[in-house]
Amino acid sequence: MSKILAALSDPTRRAVVERLMTGQASVSALHTPHDMAMPTFLRHLKVLEDAGLIRSVKRGRVRTCQIAMGPIHELQGWLEWQTTLRDDRPS
Amino acid sequence: MSKILAALSDPTRRAVVERLMTGQASVSALHTPHDMAMPTFLRHLKVLEDAGLIRSVKRGRVRTCQIAMGPIHELQGWLEWQTTLRDDRPS
Repeated sequence: MSKILAALSDPTRRAVVERLMTGQASVSALHTPHDMAMPTFLRHLKVLEDAGLIRSVKRGRVRTCQIAMGPIHELQGWLEWQTTLRDDRPS
Repeated sequence: MSKILAALSDPTRRAVVERLMTGQASVSALHTPHDMAMPTFLRHLKVLEDAGLIRSVKRGRVRTCQIAMGPIHELQGWLEWQTTLRDDRPS
């Protein structure tokens, strides 16, 4: 959970997640909207991949990324549990 | 959103949020289960307060904290929007 939340705490990384929710994309296409050197952008992708939020495969010279929903659902589950704790508290 | 996610990316701070979901508590009571010096613990509370996740009031010598649900709902809204993006993508 700590890794997932830290990965999503950066606006560039959240923008990548938002983009990949609409379908897979190449690293180059993901990089285009971001005014940032490629090595810096690749470090952001690595943080997302290490947190399990994205997966990537390389075919020839093109690396393609896709979203992995597991961590998103894990985070949703934690938040849902929190609101349940709150609803159950004695008034 | 970045501040909220960064605040929740630490296990001590998530434990405080989980505790406060069941009702308000004094700083001293919140600190008890954590094997950590009080100044370190107070820095964690400050991060949560700066992110808008908790509020605190001091009455005499006792500071009492309570959860603020706004940022939690904001985060839930963002995640819900993400899953909507995913469901809407062309197959």
